[in-house]
Amino acid sequence: MLTLGIDTATKVCAVALCRDGQPLAAYEINMGMTHSEGLVPQLEQLFTRTGINKRDIELMSVSIGPGSFTGLRIGLATAEAIAYSLQIPLVGVDTLKALAYNIPVEGVLLAPILDAQKGNYYLALYEWKQGKLYEVESVKVVTGGELGNILLAYMKPVVVLGEYAKITDSLPAGVTCAPKTVSMPKALSVAMLGMEEHLGKENKKYFGLEPFYIRRSEAEELWEQRQKNLAKSDE
Amino acid sequence: MLTLGIDTATKVCAVALCRDGQPLAAYEINMGMTHSEGLVPQLEQLFTRTGINKRDIELMSVSIGPGSFTGLRIGLATAEAIAYSLQIPLVGVDTLKALAYNIPVEGVLLAPILDAQKGNYYLALYEWKQGKLYEVESVKVVTGGELGNILLAYMKPVVVLGEYAKITDSLPAGVTCAPKTVSMPKALSVAMLGMEEHLGKENKKYFGLEPFYIRRSEAEELWEQRQKNLAKSDE
Repeated sequence: MLTLGIDTATKVCAVALCRDGQPLAAYEINMGMTHSEGLVPQLEQLFTRTGINKRDIELMSVSIGPGSFTGLRIGLATAEAIAYSLQIPLVGVDTLKALAYNIPVEGVLLAPILDAQKGNYYLALYEWKQGKLYEVESVKVVTGGELGNILLAYMKPVVVLGEYAKITDSLPAGVTCAPKTVSMPKALSVAMLGMEEHLGKENKKYFGLEPFYIRRSEAEELWEQRQKNLAKSDE
Repeated sequence: MLTLGIDTATKVCAVALCRDGQPLAAYEINMGMTHSEGLVPQLEQLFTRTGINKRDIELMSVSIGPGSFTGLRIGLATAEAIAYSLQIPLVGVDTLKALAYNIPVEGVLLAPILDAQKGNYYLALYEWKQGKLYEVESVKVVTGGELGNILLAYMKPVVVLGEYAKITDSLPAGVTCAPKTVSMPKALSVAMLGMEEHLGKENKKYFGLEPFYIRRSEAEELWEQRQKNLAKSDE
């Protein structure tokens, strides 16, 4: 099953192709460019170089967050448009799970984190067992200060990956940070996980895939603020 | 230091850019295409999409084997041409070490292998300690049958990666195979390792980088055979 993966949940713009568990191509750019500018040309180049016909894609897999509002919107809109055009299924993959998939080693607790703004972090915990990635703890929001104690409580070697740059110094001994090469979202992980999740559910209809934003859009926040102000002035 | 990495030691054609330990872009194609056809266009697309000027590259890093004759020749020739044109240093990185760099986790023994033909495998052993990758055993050639016992002797969890496809079934319990996503050579690993190895040796001159072929070229083997036959007919 030829699968196209897209990850634009963070500043990294990543696209990849795999077929039946075999990686075919991966293309990641981490230059802080806007995804609206980069995603489609990057996809186009991937198809040009691999010689794969877009129409042969059988499954679309996209990273659905937690992540940035605009990044997720662009990734999901592009993935939806491709799935709709080709009439193929579209699977959404958790961004934190896809990050954990970058380090396929047993015996360590993987702690992917993403910056949830204002000193908060999205955190989930995963572990590999016999070639499969399992969720040990589902996603929650914690402060940078709490993170170290939460991880220490597991009494296991922990590897933090993702957006840990701001809190590296506050992490306790025993918690190691993954190198940057495996800390970036990879669309190959998204494609492989999407395919794994789709297998056995070939008849499933994926409607209304909803992205998981780190925070609401500026417009929504401003609107709420204005409603509050209006309510106050009415009093 | 803006570093360009190239890995064409296997069937994978991989190029990547990093700056001062920060991954900027990576582009890998694993379609069994010839590198002479794919490498330069892939590099060109990388520069187009990142907007990075080729002339700004400060260090060239290339995977020097073990690997296939033609692949290494094309990679090294391209890397040498770029280094020569831009008058920048060129560092050679061991292909097995670059493979081990794909799995940056402590507490496991990493066993990258590459198919050395005729039932033989190139094997080296590596381990991460405090964020650095150390060689535990340098490269040697072993048969597929010997491999399992060699790895078991270390009495540690071992992860095999690379070209293990033909011997997966003969590996003993306790030895796990890394998923295919991290088993392919990655030029980002080559770029990062090249940069690490170059730091502190900025004045070193890298002359006469020699690739490490898995086997000699067909032409060399035929020539030797002919010499032997000629010697016999002289007797």
